[in-house]
Amino acid sequence: MTIKLHCFGESGNAYKAALALELSGLAWEPVKVDFFGGETRSPEYRADVNNLGEAPVMIDGDVKLSQSGVIQDYVSEKSGKFGGKDSAERREILRWVLWDNHKLSSMAGMTRFLMNFLPEEKQPKEVIAFNQGRLGAAYELLNNQLERRDWIVGDSITNADLSCCGYLYYPEPFGFDRSAFPNIDAWLTRISETEGWKHPYDLMPGSPADRA
Amino acid sequence: MTIKLHCFGESGNAYKAALALELSGLAWEPVKVDFFGGETRSPEYRADVNNLGEAPVMIDGDVKLSQSGVIQDYVSEKSGKFGGKDSAERREILRWVLWDNHKLSSMAGMTRFLMNFLPEEKQPKEVIAFNQGRLGAAYELLNNQLERRDWIVGDSITNADLSCCGYLYYPEPFGFDRSAFPNIDAWLTRISETEGWKHPYDLMPGSPADRA
Repeated sequence: MTIKLHCFGESGNAYKAALALELSGLAWEPVKVDFFGGETRSPEYRADVNNLGEAPVMIDGDVKLSQSGVIQDYVSEKSGKFGGKDSAERREILRWVLWDNHKLSSMAGMTRFLMNFLPEEKQPKEVIAFNQGRLGAAYELLNNQLERRDWIVGDSITNADLSCCGYLYYPEPFGFDRSAFPNIDAWLTRISETEGWKHPYDLMPGSPADRA
Repeated sequence: MTIKLHCFGESGNAYKAALALELSGLAWEPVKVDFFGGETRSPEYRADVNNLGEAPVMIDGDVKLSQSGVIQDYVSEKSGKFGGKDSAERREILRWVLWDNHKLSSMAGMTRFLMNFLPEEKQPKEVIAFNQGRLGAAYELLNNQLERRDWIVGDSITNADLSCCGYLYYPEPFGFDRSAFPNIDAWLTRISETEGWKHPYDLMPGSPADRA
């Protein structure tokens, strides 16, 4: 049975799950969530897909999962990929997935939304500046981790990489400049050269261009 | 060997790990981190305890772990407690731990810090108001999840509860009013009535009172 992922191109959190599915080789297909049209807030979505209005949501037969890190965990269990080679690596991967949720993707996703998907007059400038300060510290930490390393954990691509890169390929400006963080820049190139890699707007349905 | 947890009373993230250790029955002891004195930014801490300057850090013989969710995972593996009774529960717990890191504790911890541990004139008012709006949505979601349920996942206390409650017992104001969320209020009481429960300032060394 083909795994279904309810997702949309603009969501870096959905991208983390979609990229794990795509690179794992499992059979999957995207189901477009019309987030900007309010679909995740609709009674139908809450009843049929996710009671908390979350995206992405993965459905594999009777298994329905949300939160990208949980979907990645499931993909790893099913495919044997990206989950680390022992319990120490598994915990180190979880550490980075949690850090990403706490410090990197949460802030990057929110800041990109505020700067690109809200009308200019509604953008909270002080919040954006504050978030960019926090993000600067997160980029620096990640850049340091990638000094003399190809991957965040161990010696191959794992869910730590597939989580932390979630928002970093998007073209819309949110204060992230790849060229200022050479180790991150090289690592993003390395991920994008992995067999089967696709940009979020090519991997999932929906992009700002559709609404232009 | 006694497990050591580098922690401090003011940290709700440290509390999540300390509370899991305490309620698990494992032998552990706290090691005070002088966060407000800059210890996590010192070269010694970075060299000896955690290269990223994180707290809490758990040390059990040769095992050194950071990120509260990773420490909880380790405590569950070692004690057999709080990790869920099967893989479906384990994933549902991970879902809530990730959600907490993304939406609840990250925002609550930051907002409490800004409102209580920065001088009045340095408090970014627009950021605080924005965060409180986000937190309101998170409290409502958690309150709904706890409707007709004693615990977030399954029918006993798990790491989902021990994660989400991390910042919710602190007395310093950050916009959270227990009485406005009756299911959260009852759930916090339920956790605090668990055998062995302690308030963060009683469980870990250091509190604002020490610096008053």
